[in-house]
Amino acid sequence: MSNERAKRAGEAIRKSGADWGIFTGFENVCYASGHVASIEDGFSPFAGGPSTAIVSKDGSVIGLVAPNVEDTSASFATVIESYVGYDATERTNHESNYAKAVIDLTNKLSVGGKVAIEPATFPASVQVALGSSVSGFVSVVSEIAKARAVKTPAEIELLRHCAKLATVGQKAALARVKPGRPEMAQWAEVRSAMELSENRRLSVVADFLTGIDRTVSFTGPPNDRLVQPGDPVIVDLGPRASNGYWGDSCNTFVLGEPSSKLLALHRAVVDSLAECQRVLKPGIRANELDRAVRTVLKKCGYEHPHHTGHGIGAGVHEYPRIVERETVIIEPNMVLMIEPGAYAPGIGGVRCEWMFRITESGNELLSTHEHTLKPIE
Amino acid sequence: MSNERAKRAGEAIRKSGADWGIFTGFENVCYASGHVASIEDGFSPFAGGPSTAIVSKDGSVIGLVAPNVEDTSASFATVIESYVGYDATERTNHESNYAKAVIDLTNKLSVGGKVAIEPATFPASVQVALGSSVSGFVSVVSEIAKARAVKTPAEIELLRHCAKLATVGQKAALARVKPGRPEMAQWAEVRSAMELSENRRLSVVADFLTGIDRTVSFTGPPNDRLVQPGDPVIVDLGPRASNGYWGDSCNTFVLGEPSSKLLALHRAVVDSLAECQRVLKPGIRANELDRAVRTVLKKCGYEHPHHTGHGIGAGVHEYPRIVERETVIIEPNMVLMIEPGAYAPGIGGVRCEWMFRITESGNELLSTHEHTLKPIE
Repeated sequence: MSNERAKRAGEAIRKSGADWGIFTGFENVCYASGHVASIEDGFSPFAGGPSTAIVSKDGSVIGLVAPNVEDTSASFATVIESYVGYDATERTNHESNYAKAVIDLTNKLSVGGKVAIEPATFPASVQVALGSSVSGFVSVVSEIAKARAVKTPAEIELLRHCAKLATVGQKAALARVKPGRPEMAQWAEVRSAMELSENRRLSVVADFLTGIDRTVSFTGPPNDRLVQPGDPVIVDLGPRASNGYWGDSCNTFVLGEPSSKLLALHRAVVDSLAECQRVLKPGIRANELDRAVRTVLKKCGYEHPHHTGHGIGAGVHEYPRIVERETVIIEPNMVLMIEPGAYAPGIGGVRCEWMFRITESGNELLSTHEHTLKPIE
Repeated sequence: MSNERAKRAGEAIRKSGADWGIFTGFENVCYASGHVASIEDGFSPFAGGPSTAIVSKDGSVIGLVAPNVEDTSASFATVIESYVGYDATERTNHESNYAKAVIDLTNKLSVGGKVAIEPATFPASVQVALGSSVSGFVSVVSEIAKARAVKTPAEIELLRHCAKLATVGQKAALARVKPGRPEMAQWAEVRSAMELSENRRLSVVADFLTGIDRTVSFTGPPNDRLVQPGDPVIVDLGPRASNGYWGDSCNTFVLGEPSSKLLALHRAVVDSLAECQRVLKPGIRANELDRAVRTVLKKCGYEHPHHTGHGIGAGVHEYPRIVERETVIIEPNMVLMIEPGAYAPGIGGVRCEWMFRITESGNELLSTHEHTLKPIE
């Protein structure tokens, strides 16, 4: 597993025209080194820079720099350089400790030549400190996004796990969301079900919306609204599993008998996903897939005002995006989230989302949750 | 409020020897521009760089750059530059959109001369793009940390609110943690109580530990351990309020009758906090305060293996840290968290934490939670 991911990272480094890669975004650090950086509370006050992976262009050498308070046990890096970010007895100069650790590791690994970086997160501190020991910097962003789009067999297993984790949350929502309590309290139980299942606090990207107006507005976090009998409920859950990969999923249900108009919305959305299952295979372009899904919805008079889908992996939204103006050809072992929605003022909103792996001749559904309007009694 | 914080940021920029400041860490962005960056799920896939504040050396000009999917309503920036991070119809080049937005804003504001930056988060993309239009870069980290240590009157009100928010969580823990359910499920209710109180999902830095062995180990997140009758429980809650500022707090309680040995631990910890209240005033050095607190614990045979305290504000752990080798003199309107603990294998761990504002002649307790071993029945 480790080798294959690092090898592909190495390939992206070569294709970027570089000899080494230094990754500083948490997604690529995870991809190339297996390290699951702590992200839930923002940049840690005990970090002097982003956790950083250094990878050779053949992917055989993988270095990792992380502060002494961060768990690095998930990493398959060949060398791990820890630095003091927290000390119980003195003020730490963790910024210079971090920069020094990166430089020390580049020396250890004999990093030289051209270095591929992520310009949005590559710290000025490292750029200055590396200075003349390298011949220049180039962006790896475009190539690593392409490399990550097609998943390894091991990654597909990780994503299978993430899909199941999302299902834990979806089932909890179907069983526990009831009229009479605020959204926030019910959301807490959904999140907690997934955290218990992973035995770990998790980052979760989510929409949690109840009632006609909020579901029509289609995106947003839970709030203090009291859930009402008859409410439509949109639960969109993107948990980051302990393996560093993300799940995603959406289901819509109704706390009572759905109106005939809401049933029509749901039928259109489910039909558009069925159409996706029919046409999603290697060779189709992202925009063709987008159009196929939208066409089913449009026939019923609906159109979602958001993207139709996206890749997923070490990031919750990855290349390629399934949108009108993306023409990339879909390939085997891409893993895509497809999330059509229909939103009608006065009636409600419905969105359903599934995770698909593209096979040699079609697709495999990785999601394990059902699209059902009916809560668990 | 806005003016005073930006003015102090400007002062830090001047003291760093610069004409302008560009802040890219979420704490300083909040401090200088009021913007509460989204941090809960790591670097957003729809961001092309960190949300960025640009401040003149007199603090009168405040620019903010943020992606189109981020709520900027809390900001008191004088100019806000939004860029496309998310688009429903096409692949966004959000990295270059971000860098371009920063450059556009520096042009609009006529940024020139020397620029003070945060080297750990200042992106290579901006450093390169700014290039020759500025005369150089210098680190603002040390000066801005000092500037932030002494709070404005408005900040003290923000922190008062944060302390109350932490109390909401502490009260929920006292009322809801019961034997028979896993830590993770109980933690969810504590977090949810704070989120309901703010009507918003919150980042929360927390230790949640039950049972003798886990409380002795003194730090860590909740897990799947089933809470038992008689368990000691350490609840350390650091919620980030919707105003962007952090609360912090710790209480320890027992699900049943505490043993006499645990009572002794608790007494020592509470006494050491009382000693803090007695000695904490302007003029004392951080290490003297550290020693005063530790001395009380040591007399009882205990010593915490972690820091005694830290500043708090737009960051959950700020300068100054209350540790053995920090000699800075404590000043009026610093706000400090003090968190002594006693941990004894076979008996359990106890930690109690309060937030103090330093007054002209002593200190004021900002925390509103009690240190009680007794849960709410």
